[in-house]
Amino acid sequence: MTAATPAPFTADDYEARMRRAAEAAADAGLDGVLVAPGPDLVWLTGYRPVETERLTLLVLRAGQDPALVVPVLEAPDAAKSAGAPALTLHDWADGTDPYAAAEPLMGRAGRFGISDNGWALHLLGLQKLLPATRYSALTEVLPMLRAVKDEAELERLAAAGAAADQAFEEIRKVRFADRRESEVSHDLAELLRRFGHSQVDFTIVASGPNGANPHHEADERVIENGDMVVLDFGGLKDGYGSDTSRTVHVGEPDDEERKVHDIVREAQEAGFRAVRPGAACQDVDRAARAVIEAAGYGEHFIHRTGHGIGVTTHEPPYMVEGEEQPLVPGMCFSVEPGIYLPGRFGVRIEDIVTVTEDGGRRLNDTSREMVIVD
Amino acid sequence: MTAATPAPFTADDYEARMRRAAEAAADAGLDGVLVAPGPDLVWLTGYRPVETERLTLLVLRAGQDPALVVPVLEAPDAAKSAGAPALTLHDWADGTDPYAAAEPLMGRAGRFGISDNGWALHLLGLQKLLPATRYSALTEVLPMLRAVKDEAELERLAAAGAAADQAFEEIRKVRFADRRESEVSHDLAELLRRFGHSQVDFTIVASGPNGANPHHEADERVIENGDMVVLDFGGLKDGYGSDTSRTVHVGEPDDEERKVHDIVREAQEAGFRAVRPGAACQDVDRAARAVIEAAGYGEHFIHRTGHGIGVTTHEPPYMVEGEEQPLVPGMCFSVEPGIYLPGRFGVRIEDIVTVTEDGGRRLNDTSREMVIVD
Repeated sequence: MTAATPAPFTADDYEARMRRAAEAAADAGLDGVLVAPGPDLVWLTGYRPVETERLTLLVLRAGQDPALVVPVLEAPDAAKSAGAPALTLHDWADGTDPYAAAEPLMGRAGRFGISDNGWALHLLGLQKLLPATRYSALTEVLPMLRAVKDEAELERLAAAGAAADQAFEEIRKVRFADRRESEVSHDLAELLRRFGHSQVDFTIVASGPNGANPHHEADERVIENGDMVVLDFGGLKDGYGSDTSRTVHVGEPDDEERKVHDIVREAQEAGFRAVRPGAACQDVDRAARAVIEAAGYGEHFIHRTGHGIGVTTHEPPYMVEGEEQPLVPGMCFSVEPGIYLPGRFGVRIEDIVTVTEDGGRRLNDTSREMVIVD
Repeated sequence: MTAATPAPFTADDYEARMRRAAEAAADAGLDGVLVAPGPDLVWLTGYRPVETERLTLLVLRAGQDPALVVPVLEAPDAAKSAGAPALTLHDWADGTDPYAAAEPLMGRAGRFGISDNGWALHLLGLQKLLPATRYSALTEVLPMLRAVKDEAELERLAAAGAAADQAFEEIRKVRFADRRESEVSHDLAELLRRFGHSQVDFTIVASGPNGANPHHEADERVIENGDMVVLDFGGLKDGYGSDTSRTVHVGEPDDEERKVHDIVREAQEAGFRAVRPGAACQDVDRAARAVIEAAGYGEHFIHRTGHGIGVTTHEPPYMVEGEEQPLVPGMCFSVEPGIYLPGRFGVRIEDIVTVTEDGGRRLNDTSREMVIVD
């Protein structure tokens, strides 16, 4: 049913990523990078600890071996991670000061980038112990750290996208009318797993008026004939993310529904066509938004046009007004404009797109025409 | 199979919690509390948004209505949360500065407690915009905010504990020998769900040498006759946590296995007996640890004795050396000493205990004798 599992990343792969991160930090005028459990740590080391109040912190500095501060009782698991051979572990025990374990690795003063999702508890602990040290959010100082994917990563993202597309091709055949959103959502999750996802992050089924809430998940509303239904689903396959949206209609749509769907489809196409090396992230947003504004629905497109994707389904770069970061081949992100009409319905169409030398390539490619379901 | 679902907490309940939090902050010399998505926000408002890079922040200050800063596209979900009637929503749109939305609610200078698990990204954003404001981790300045449970919370925690006990009574009947840890772990998760858990947080099955790693989860090791097996499992039932450990043996144990199990059982009993109002958290740790040290296994008890439990399975107060916080009736926490013999086996015994006027009451009460399984 699913393609062969790709070869796992090796200690050498992780070592290269850690070296690149330390060098990028030095180039950006930073003394190093502090990495918290979560997507940054997974990407740099393959290590995926449970996030707790106990400090786990990877310290990367140019000219210094990568060092992982880790609770002593989690050290055995850390030592088993794929990136461990490239790391030295510095453990600390309950009842001792974890920040004191980090201090000798950081030096007395300097400027560090720290994972966005690192806990405030830990940042405050470091700030207290090392008051002369300055910290910046990693996505602010090194926004491109994980944004440009290499060939092995692109393969995985393409495979995740293809699996999500397979799920869409199956879900469009199931019955929608007279079933609860939660039931169709459950079907979608099963399909993502069947096509190789190890983790399902979201399976939005937003029918009729629920579709006007972009973050509606799925509830007990019974889908009716005549409903627009926004489907937005994704998760992780072999460690990399999928995220795609299609808006289907139960039975025949009326003229306005057709019109709004057409506008969103054109906006998505315009966003996609704006993708090319050197364009700014905000250009993708502007291109999509211009179509919707020109059609008179500007106030009903109430979110940015897209977000990056990699080892998580939500990461930089963001396709949003004000983001001037130029696009670089290998970047992967969503292009997902929408129109939301309160109390009535919503439409969203989303593909993951990767930047190529001469434009963009979609990693989702199911029909963007309005699909009629039963 | 499961008892009736308790009546959900109401807007009045959440309003009272928010008021208490604001008053406790004022009493502690703080200007207010900044609450991030996660257990603090769930406890204060019933609102459980997905954690993302978009700022969601509850601002509580004495004499000011509770205010929730929320991304505009998540505002509809926030408005549906149980605590919403007691909140004013302040939304912000993609492309605008979310911290500027928080600023008027915080004033120009002051001192705030902030959720431990708030993102570093957001703390840094606030520090940049309001450089004269000082921040402290909430568990440092208001460690008791969620620690003392009321009657309705104690009922839920007791029900979650009873459900976990039911799961243990069933799992001890299943076959262990010649099955993979992951299979028994899967059985345990099913049992927790069957007995009313909506969320399973962990189902540790650590057999033989794997038991010597306290945070081992469950892997493909095939359990053998003669193995000690640490079982440690829990999750959420009706929004409140369970967490219990028992160590079972496949077939007859040898003398040392019996001896180590007896020591841990006595240590757990000693920790439990140390629970009474006015004792310090560290006294519980010391009481349990003293038994293990006296028996010559002190170096093999490599973690603290316990942690609080409530809307999450891991929260203050911590039963650890150095924690002088006095115990108060209504607190709930684990008492879970263990002995870990590298390369050989481990033993851990854990109950959730609540502080009563005259001592402690266990919320887990399956046999603490060594159970022999097949």
